[in-house]
Amino acid sequence: MSFINNSFMITNECGLQLYNNIAKKLPIIDYHCHLDAKEIYENKHFQHISHLWLAGDHYKWRAMRANGIPENKITGNASSDEKFQAWAETVESCFGNPLYHWTHLELTKYFSVTETLNSKNWQSIMNRCNDLLQRDDFTPRALIERSDVEVICTTDNPLDDLRYHKLLQADNFKTKVLPTFRPDDVFDTEPTRFNLFINKLEEITQIKIKNLSDFHQALASRIAYFHDVGCRISDHGPVEIQYQPLSAEQNNLLFQKILSNTALSDEESRSWNSAILVALAAMYKKHNWAMQLHFGAIRNNNTVKYQSIGINSGFDSIADQTHLAANLNGLLDAMLQNNGLPKTILYNLNASYNDVVATTIANFQSGDEGIKSPMQFGSGWWFNDTRQGMLNQLTTLSEQGVLANFVGMLTDSRSFVSYTRHDYFRRILCNLIGDWVEKGEVPNDQDILQTMITNICVGNARRYFGF
Amino acid sequence: MSFINNSFMITNECGLQLYNNIAKKLPIIDYHCHLDAKEIYENKHFQHISHLWLAGDHYKWRAMRANGIPENKITGNASSDEKFQAWAETVESCFGNPLYHWTHLELTKYFSVTETLNSKNWQSIMNRCNDLLQRDDFTPRALIERSDVEVICTTDNPLDDLRYHKLLQADNFKTKVLPTFRPDDVFDTEPTRFNLFINKLEEITQIKIKNLSDFHQALASRIAYFHDVGCRISDHGPVEIQYQPLSAEQNNLLFQKILSNTALSDEESRSWNSAILVALAAMYKKHNWAMQLHFGAIRNNNTVKYQSIGINSGFDSIADQTHLAANLNGLLDAMLQNNGLPKTILYNLNASYNDVVATTIANFQSGDEGIKSPMQFGSGWWFNDTRQGMLNQLTTLSEQGVLANFVGMLTDSRSFVSYTRHDYFRRILCNLIGDWVEKGEVPNDQDILQTMITNICVGNARRYFGF
Amino acid sequence: MSFINNSFMITNECGLQLYNNIAKKLPIIDYHCHLDAKEIYENKHFQHISHLWLAGDHYKWRAMRANGIPENKITGNASSDEKFQAWAETVESCFGNPLYHWTHLELTKYFSVTETLNSKNWQSIMNRCNDLLQRDDFTPRALIERSDVEVICTTDNPLDDLRYHKLLQADNFKTKVLPTFRPDDVFDTEPTRFNLFINKLEEITQIKIKNLSDFHQALASRIAYFHDVGCRISDHGPVEIQYQPLSAEQNNLLFQKILSNTALSDEESRSWNSAILVALAAMYKKHNWAMQLHFGAIRNNNTVKYQSIGINSGFDSIADQTHLAANLNGLLDAMLQNNGLPKTILYNLNASYNDVVATTIANFQSGDEGIKSPMQFGSGWWFNDTRQGMLNQLTTLSEQGVLANFVGMLTDSRSFVSYTRHDYFRRILCNLIGDWVEKGEVPNDQDILQTMITNICVGNARRYFGF
Repeated sequence: MSFINNSFMITNECGLQLYNNIAKKLPIIDYHCHLDAKEIYENKHFQHISHLWLAGDHYKWRAMRANGIPENKITGNASSDEKFQAWAETVESCFGNPLYHWTHLELTKYFSVTETLNSKNWQSIMNRCNDLLQRDDFTPRALIERSDVEVICTTDNPLDDLRYHKLLQADNFKTKVLPTFRPDDVFDTEPTRFNLFINKLEEITQIKIKNLSDFHQALASRIAYFHDVGCRISDHGPVEIQYQPLSAEQNNLLFQKILSNTALSDEESRSWNSAILVALAAMYKKHNWAMQLHFGAIRNNNTVKYQSIGINSGFDSIADQTHLAANLNGLLDAMLQNNGLPKTILYNLNASYNDVVATTIANFQSGDEGIKSPMQFGSGWWFNDTRQGMLNQLTTLSEQGVLANFVGMLTDSRSFVSYTRHDYFRRILCNLIGDWVEKGEVPNDQDILQTMITNICVGNARRYFGF
Repeated sequence: MSFINNSFMITNECGLQLYNNIAKKLPIIDYHCHLDAKEIYENKHFQHISHLWLAGDHYKWRAMRANGIPENKITGNASSDEKFQAWAETVESCFGNPLYHWTHLELTKYFSVTETLNSKNWQSIMNRCNDLLQRDDFTPRALIERSDVEVICTTDNPLDDLRYHKLLQADNFKTKVLPTFRPDDVFDTEPTRFNLFINKLEEITQIKIKNLSDFHQALASRIAYFHDVGCRISDHGPVEIQYQPLSAEQNNLLFQKILSNTALSDEESRSWNSAILVALAAMYKKHNWAMQLHFGAIRNNNTVKYQSIGINSGFDSIADQTHLAANLNGLLDAMLQNNGLPKTILYNLNASYNDVVATTIANFQSGDEGIKSPMQFGSGWWFNDTRQGMLNQLTTLSEQGVLANFVGMLTDSRSFVSYTRHDYFRRILCNLIGDWVEKGEVPNDQDILQTMITNICVGNARRYFGF
Repeated sequence: MSFINNSFMITNECGLQLYNNIAKKLPIIDYHCHLDAKEIYENKHFQHISHLWLAGDHYKWRAMRANGIPENKITGNASSDEKFQAWAETVESCFGNPLYHWTHLELTKYFSVTETLNSKNWQSIMNRCNDLLQRDDFTPRALIERSDVEVICTTDNPLDDLRYHKLLQADNFKTKVLPTFRPDDVFDTEPTRFNLFINKLEEITQIKIKNLSDFHQALASRIAYFHDVGCRISDHGPVEIQYQPLSAEQNNLLFQKILSNTALSDEESRSWNSAILVALAAMYKKHNWAMQLHFGAIRNNNTVKYQSIGINSGFDSIADQTHLAANLNGLLDAMLQNNGLPKTILYNLNASYNDVVATTIANFQSGDEGIKSPMQFGSGWWFNDTRQGMLNQLTTLSEQGVLANFVGMLTDSRSFVSYTRHDYFRRILCNLIGDWVEKGEVPNDQDILQTMITNICVGNARRYFGF
């Protein structure tokens, strides 16, 4: 039998009951992921477990590189079988890494594989998985349905026509597949790329963009378009949180400068970026969207590999920045003074900033608009999507805010079998809270406990996002 | 029965014995708080539990805002009953937040309320508390006496006449109520405010302040005045620890510049601030005072709320700074070279700096003056005054210094029922050390254990401060 | 009986078995320490336990200063007996400090002392130890042999003739005593000291150093010399990780500037330092050496004590720096682009950077050269060489990399009885992994577990360094 059993990650009786009676039965709202709506729509069978599991999964690629696997078997020309074997050899050495748990949660839940994957049994497990993948309950949509997913929010470019989201809705696919507005291009001030974006934006919106006001109008138009397709969330991924006040006049001058193909200085870029973020925030607020800020990733650090493999290949890592508290407070304060601070979820990649982020957020909580915890300290992100990372986030949030109002977990994944990450989170959550109960740190009040677990797993997200 | 029982927060037998036999019986030395000596002197009854509990408690206000309570019921015009109800609704969602524990420790200890406060029973609990508050054992002085408090150190402006401290001493109030010298005004280089302070200082000290030497003399005069009223501690609250060397001549020039109503540059301000702190430190050392540095709070971050509610309203958070190690080492080294490094307690708000602070302090320990650990790594402060924050502080101190010499806990509170924070700390301390014993990490030497617990709870503070 | 028993630091059965059956029996590869090859060669008896234990041990000195011991009994003229007594008085207050554990591990293992050292029994213990030190199994070599040490890597100046390493090899001392190339002088751009170093380097290598190419050639010559004496590791100790790109031409100009006795600006120094490190790295790679970077110590912070006692006296602490992620990624990327990124071990002193360092390293892992985890996140260093520090390092490494490939522990010590630090580490390691097994977080696969423990304790280091 697999070590992935009912009590996996749970070491106390109260936690086990919370998990079994409440958490594990609840549906999933996956409000942030990187699934492709087209793939969901087309719903094609996977031909090989390596396509489902290893193509695009740069988390696994990093582990394989660290385990001495040559690049050919990771992103290169090796066969799907060879790649699967390489992963099996790697995962057996991954005790303590979340990949070890994710791998076996996925094998157990979706493929009923109860052995632990290793360098001896890889072929047998691979063959069984490949056979199953041809069945109708292993297509993308079937995997989603079997995972009891209410809502999926993909991550989309503002210029996207959202064709597949619309087709899915027309198709009455039971799970809502909604877009997320992720305007990276707006923050890339390199003039050539920026003007290319402006041209496309003009074309799509039919708005001639001559000044900042036009630009804002065109963006608002795309936001309205996204809203009509069901979008309720935006997403941003700055390396650092920067805030520098900028007058409307200066802001317009910077915009004209980029339009005229002139590069901004670093300081000008920072000013531009914080001004446009403040402007966008106000648009989000008008639509009652939630704004996500994922900050602190430094990307494409290995030039040799970047040139040969490209982006999102496992060469990104955690950044540090200076004066986070002043910048983040300044940014949120500017939005509030502009009467344009939307519901906001902050995800920081550098966990040593958890306390700064969580206490900063609390400066901007307000019950005056009828939402509980409009400012959210987001779930452990990327390199923090680990047991320790989640415990850090849950502990900090509970001590510096109101954990009971937390909107909970998301997959952030490119894979159709990552929903076990919700399960993993729920086990860790139930174990933590069960532990508090068993140690007498909170009363064993089943009403409060069950409400709290239900809300963190799904109820808070339902109310917060209003999909 | 309340979940707040004898073994609350204690999960091992050795820890429970240390707590029951030693820690819980010891008196309290509350060497840093924000109580008002006038309120203690006047000793008026509280008319409503909300006055005792919610007025001024910006910790609770933050939780209420995060829980969707409108501002009117927090700092606004709602009735005391409505505010109490709003707090009850909030606290029942605060599992994991220290407010949950503090609330129920206070209800249990002072009001014998053993239910957990919630949105159903709030009225009954409120009424019982309000009745009790009219009894004579619920006045400020009675609450202090019932809490077995030996010493209280308030926080006071250098210009304060300390009238109420003197009256209390004349009154032979059993608990020593001593002032703390907190010269914030000295570090505020905004010329108008600074010169206003200088004028008042001249008036009070009858010293004409024309140059830096006069200024130092006037400050020394106030320090002597405070000393005569029993003050043995100073306190400082810089956002960052800054050190920049400054010649006496430059220092005098900067002083003249402010006197002549000219604003200093940021760099000049930093130089001025570190020079005046070095000068004050030498004065403290002469009187054998302890100097407290509480650093790393960024304040009043929500402009909208600052304009409507003012300071100390729950819109402060944790700051980050650069080059802490160089600045803190430079500052303490300058004091030492000036032969003016007093006993010093460092409290950092950003716990990711714990290791830097604890190891920096250790560079300046010295047994040559007959005190154990003159440099102290202070108890978890403000946002670190949580279970995890205390464990972080205790662990870092024990690994990087000598925990047995720690001067221990303080309330840092504005409330007369916060003494349970000492109890909370003692439980956590006993549990930690008991855990070491039960796991065999230290020998079960009752002499050492009892001495250690006694000293950390009260003995070290008695000897260190010499009140 | 001592509290240091077989299960010391181990609280679960699986961990205990891993320790007893595997870890405790394995030999030691101490690939980084500060032992003196001359002392090993000469193999003289210690006359007093204070000479073995207290002379040069600035960890103990810091604890003694924090415990109120006057400097005279630490580094001053007090007798060896008095110093030992002072240490005994201190250590009994050190519950929670690794010195408490190290002291008793060493007393138990080497001296069969099972009492805990304290202010009452110090004389008896001291006398017993002093007697034992006269026996032949207490000489430096005997202590090393009794500790089952396969390899010792000392830390050596590039100008060192490595005479004693050669003599030891000629002597067929069973333990390999190998040098480590630690070129601090190369990074000290103060012109007088730098040119003195250049002169000596010219003399030793017989290479006339007129330009950068000559300098590189001379360094390569010393590296080859070290390699011939068995060196396989270099070591570097920058305060900060800095990287600034520099053209070959600019680099040569800076070199000429120092040669002509002109001081570099701070920025020039940083550029010079990163360029020379990139150049050295390529040389290390040619010899298949491992490069160690120990960064983040700020040194000699107490000027008064520095002037009276000198360096390495317990006045060093943890530094912080800005933009670590950008600099470290930039540095390693430059080495890789230069085709000169050797096997590398990163040790950071500021544990709040653990995540940044561990995820940065993973950007440069590669299986293409047939080594598992060529980039290593080094063992908890100096102030992190504590239980919590080790747990932090092990947890971060396991979550962000492949713990099974970790090259493991080292002593970093100046003492012949510090090998118990390997034992301490192994207990903590076995306890951690045993805990995972007992909680059902990993399968109880004895093959994997035993291989993993063996490899981390000794196997990985054997393969990685290839001594």
